[in-house]
Amino acid sequence: MALDIRTESLKNPVPVAEYLFKRLHEVGIRSVHGLPGDFNLRALDFLPEAGLKWVGSVNELNAAYAADGYARAKGISALITTFGVGELSAMNGMAGAYSEHIPVVHIVGCPSTISQRNGMLLHHTLGNGDFNVFANMSSQISCDVARLNKPAEIADQIDHALRECWTRSRPVYIMLPTDMVEKKVEGQRLGTPIDLSELENDVEREDYVVDVVLRYLHAAQRPIILVDACAIRHRVLSEVQDLVKKTKLPVFVTPMGKGAVNENEPTYGGVYAGSGSNPEVAAQVEAADLVLSIGSLKSDFNTSGFSYRTSQLNTIDFHSTYCAVRFSEYPGVMMRGVLRKVVERVDLSKLSPPLIPKVINEVAKNRDSFTDITQAWFWPRLGEYLKEGDIVVTETGTSNFGIWETKFPPGVTGVTQIFWGSIGWSVGAAQGAALGARDMGIDRRTILMVGDGSFQLTCQEVSTMLRHRLKVTIFLINNDGFTIERWIHGLEEEYNDIVMWNYTQIPNAFGATDKQFKKFVLKTKDEVDKLLTDKAFIEGDGLQFVELRMPKLDAPRALKITAEISAKNNARTE
Amino acid sequence: MALDIRTESLKNPVPVAEYLFKRLHEVGIRSVHGLPGDFNLRALDFLPEAGLKWVGSVNELNAAYAADGYARAKGISALITTFGVGELSAMNGMAGAYSEHIPVVHIVGCPSTISQRNGMLLHHTLGNGDFNVFANMSSQISCDVARLNKPAEIADQIDHALRECWTRSRPVYIMLPTDMVEKKVEGQRLGTPIDLSELENDVEREDYVVDVVLRYLHAAQRPIILVDACAIRHRVLSEVQDLVKKTKLPVFVTPMGKGAVNENEPTYGGVYAGSGSNPEVAAQVEAADLVLSIGSLKSDFNTSGFSYRTSQLNTIDFHSTYCAVRFSEYPGVMMRGVLRKVVERVDLSKLSPPLIPKVINEVAKNRDSFTDITQAWFWPRLGEYLKEGDIVVTETGTSNFGIWETKFPPGVTGVTQIFWGSIGWSVGAAQGAALGARDMGIDRRTILMVGDGSFQLTCQEVSTMLRHRLKVTIFLINNDGFTIERWIHGLEEEYNDIVMWNYTQIPNAFGATDKQFKKFVLKTKDEVDKLLTDKAFIEGDGLQFVELRMPKLDAPRALKITAEISAKNNARTE
Ligand SMILES: Cc1ncc(C[n+]2csc(CCOP(=O)(O)OP(=O)(O)O)c2C)c(N)n1
Ligand SMILES: Cc1ncc(C[n+]2csc(CCOP(=O)(O)OP(=O)(O)O)c2C)c(N)n1
Ligand SMILES: [Mg+2]
Ligand SMILES: [Mg+2]
Repeated sequence: MALDIRTESLKNPVPVAEYLFKRLHEVGIRSVHGLPGDFNLRALDFLPEAGLKWVGSVNELNAAYAADGYARAKGISALITTFGVGELSAMNGMAGAYSEHIPVVHIVGCPSTISQRNGMLLHHTLGNGDFNVFANMSSQISCDVARLNKPAEIADQIDHALRECWTRSRPVYIMLPTDMVEKKVEGQRLGTPIDLSELENDVEREDYVVDVVLRYLHAAQRPIILVDACAIRHRVLSEVQDLVKKTKLPVFVTPMGKGAVNENEPTYGGVYAGSGSNPEVAAQVEAADLVLSIGSLKSDFNTSGFSYRTSQLNTIDFHSTYCAVRFSEYPGVMMRGVLRKVVERVDLSKLSPPLIPKVINEVAKNRDSFTDITQAWFWPRLGEYLKEGDIVVTETGTSNFGIWETKFPPGVTGVTQIFWGSIGWSVGAAQGAALGARDMGIDRRTILMVGDGSFQLTCQEVSTMLRHRLKVTIFLINNDGFTIERWIHGLEEEYNDIVMWNYTQIPNAFGATDKQFKKFVLKTKDEVDKLLTDKAFIEGDGLQFVELRMPKLDAPRALKITAEISAKNNARTE
Repeated sequence: MALDIRTESLKNPVPVAEYLFKRLHEVGIRSVHGLPGDFNLRALDFLPEAGLKWVGSVNELNAAYAADGYARAKGISALITTFGVGELSAMNGMAGAYSEHIPVVHIVGCPSTISQRNGMLLHHTLGNGDFNVFANMSSQISCDVARLNKPAEIADQIDHALRECWTRSRPVYIMLPTDMVEKKVEGQRLGTPIDLSELENDVEREDYVVDVVLRYLHAAQRPIILVDACAIRHRVLSEVQDLVKKTKLPVFVTPMGKGAVNENEPTYGGVYAGSGSNPEVAAQVEAADLVLSIGSLKSDFNTSGFSYRTSQLNTIDFHSTYCAVRFSEYPGVMMRGVLRKVVERVDLSKLSPPLIPKVINEVAKNRDSFTDITQAWFWPRLGEYLKEGDIVVTETGTSNFGIWETKFPPGVTGVTQIFWGSIGWSVGAAQGAALGARDMGIDRRTILMVGDGSFQLTCQEVSTMLRHRLKVTIFLINNDGFTIERWIHGLEEEYNDIVMWNYTQIPNAFGATDKQFKKFVLKTKDEVDKLLTDKAFIEGDGLQFVELRMPKLDAPRALKITAEISAKNNARTE
């Protein structure tokens, strides 16, 4: 085949797939999740030469969850699926990434532009000749959609999509037809990295906002800092850290912000979520006369059912696309620049001496007379087992609430999906996060806390953990069903029951010998104490699977409160 | 709470959920698949009193697959999921039902209309206050969308949706806000069943088409009948059967039509799929001078890559919404009425004496010298094990092609998803089909043929089979990976490899003791022969799990042909 005129004009022609994958590598991706399908097979051939590892996921939803977890650990991730069947299977996972502001590049191998033009009745179609219907669906949960149909535009489309993905911290969707995989694009472009830098604020506006912020801050008697999800997602944690260190203001996190702040800071005060909070935490936050609220995402489950008792009149909001001081909004003034300058310009002499909050470690206090592993006892106890650098993944259910009571050592990354709240997500996310950490060359433990109900949805992700010999310790909370749902509605209803699995046999069924992983079934506090202080277990290489038998109806206090508010909201009819 | 004016005017006020579920029961549904979530919990309380059983599925995609299988066995089915996370997980399963013309009622419990109106930042949302975004996605794969927001309209909406679902044989989507669950609708309507009858053809037009059909049929020298998917989906199998019995014309099925015709009919000729067919079958079909093509769905995988060698000039097409004789189309003339009259009015004296096709049973012929279980040997062999009334589910991969060579006894229902082709589907579908059969009070065996790769995606559906003690025999083809993909592209590539599981341990891990199911690992033809003639195994109560070790690169002939054509189509660049 002779080169066409366009290709002849290229200085360094490289195939589309090579270009795309080299760009993925450049932005930091090393492993790619997904499943093969005939519409993406040829493209997959280009992964190794771009330095990308194929994960070989077990299904697409799990793959999407894992890509989500990978991005949380490593910054950004990619998922490759096949047209229709693959991409739609991943839909919920990608929607979660959108909802939770996670940058995932979703690449869908699709029929050739020729087949599309001819409206062929291909497998994986709806039979109506519409090849854009799935992309249109995904456009609702993507901050950019790139249909790579015209070689001359493809390099631009790819660069644009990756830039959007990173800077807006949300998924993008790339549709790659089979006949475009080997079309040539300008390889010289690869010499210049994609510009991933954030836009700068307009200086005058930024300074204006900084002045207003400082005025309120200097005037406040009891200012505090409250750190939430978007501070993590939009990467201002170093600004936050500097602010905390310099001002020594009391600092709290929301449930979705847990892990964003070094909990060993002397001014760290705990998790605030309105009426679900530990009462002492709530008292401290609600007594503040100024809340510097950084990256807030005030969803129902992140606020115990919208139960904040703080006033907007006492709040300054820092967001990725705007700031707001009380009721004055400053659209387009992004938090990073403002925070940076607040740190630089704050006059410490004008700050009121801060009240030092007290974080209470509940372990001893909660050792009740039951031998059972109770929720109130377990979560603080877990904190003593955690160590610097751990990645702690929790799931919708008791673990997402229990973890509020777990004190994190410095450098622990908390990974939760409290806003989207899709169960089963955590198993995939843990796999992805562990792989992401390994791809960064860091030796971290990934610790997964997952309910029995949630685990069942995505159990096969354990197979992927084994396939890649990832260092994951799974604590499976076996409380015989959907406890969180029981507390919302239907305490003893059949629909909240699940089948009692032999959980610790799962890795064996997935091909692991008893030598290839460690398993434990724990029924008492003493057994937990023993295991969590066992040296080999603490080192924990590879997969460790711990089943915790916990009482069926036991739940963290915060869960019960949130569930009750949720149930009321659902039951409201006027 | 006082009754509002509207409710007071109702003669027999019943809650929306009760109305909906009683309607589901009326159209034939007895078990409902799905998962609970806080936005559907209250609705689930109404299931038992409507006579509906809750399946308690293990995840939503599997639940959708299972609902698909249930509908194939029982006629129609229902799936209940929760807003966002649940429904999107089911998306691919529902898209498959749409693509393949399966009537599934998808009910999504969603936030109250009050929360929606207030644009609350609830869990399971995208954070943009848009509560219709998921319904809009689903509208692409539903033949009706009913948002139950106004009590006065709800009963009509429900009846309309169910009618559409049944008559168009496609999914419908029903969005049920929490605050509507207990609103009252007119219960008296339940006294009159929903009208599910098909529209009748305009008599004059119908007679016209019948005349044209008969003219060609009487004139033909070598007419044949070819039965495809839509004959099953649009329920004209009794018309087809009468046509075959009366005319004694040679009759063939397509891959998607397999099981539609009693293969013991003396004139049954086998599976036609263009160049993928057994050559003797192809010769007979392609020598016809008239093809009565009933319910055709000429997708790539159903035609071995569009390789029919029949001419439209020799074809009469019967469809659910139109008929076509050669190039003349008759829109709005539905096949049922036409077929009925063709059967009545055909003049047997004018029919040419049919050529009797020969179905070749390949079992003996294919006993090659290898002890291994080869594909060519296995599929005909399976036919001898099958018995009347079996439900045979096959999966995308070697089994969907192999099954062409398996002779079905009368009354066997073939269940495949050749058009949509989502792997893992068959495990859910088998569960649903087995349950559907049981709900009909019929004692049928459900036999699942699934590849190792496909099985891994949805393995937890085995847990649901165990939960309901369903009578399912699983033959898992362990050929160490994605063999069908290997034949399309990447014969030895890593992306076509999977982890080697201990498949027969899966049911144990899902909580079954060795007494609660039977397991077998077979490596040789002799072992297969022995098991398939074992009386206890043939009776086979409950779950039987058979792992077949088959050679990695062995594939049915038809698969290789189709894969090659597919690969070429994907590789075409101009
Ligand atoms: C995909 C999906 N399906 C359904 C739900 C509804 N849901 C939320 S929590 C939950 C139960 C979780 O149970 P488990 O993991 O056992 O947690 P625990 O018992 O510790 O509360 C369910 C079914 C959901 N959030 N996501
Ligand atoms: C949900 C989904 N993901 C990916 C694919 C692409 N695909 C089609 S067949 C197949 C492999 C099936 O392998 P297996 O079940 O082992 O079948 P066999 O080895 O018998 O061919 C894959 C990955 C698909 N069809 N559906
Ligand atoms: Mg549980
Ligand atoms: Mg296989």
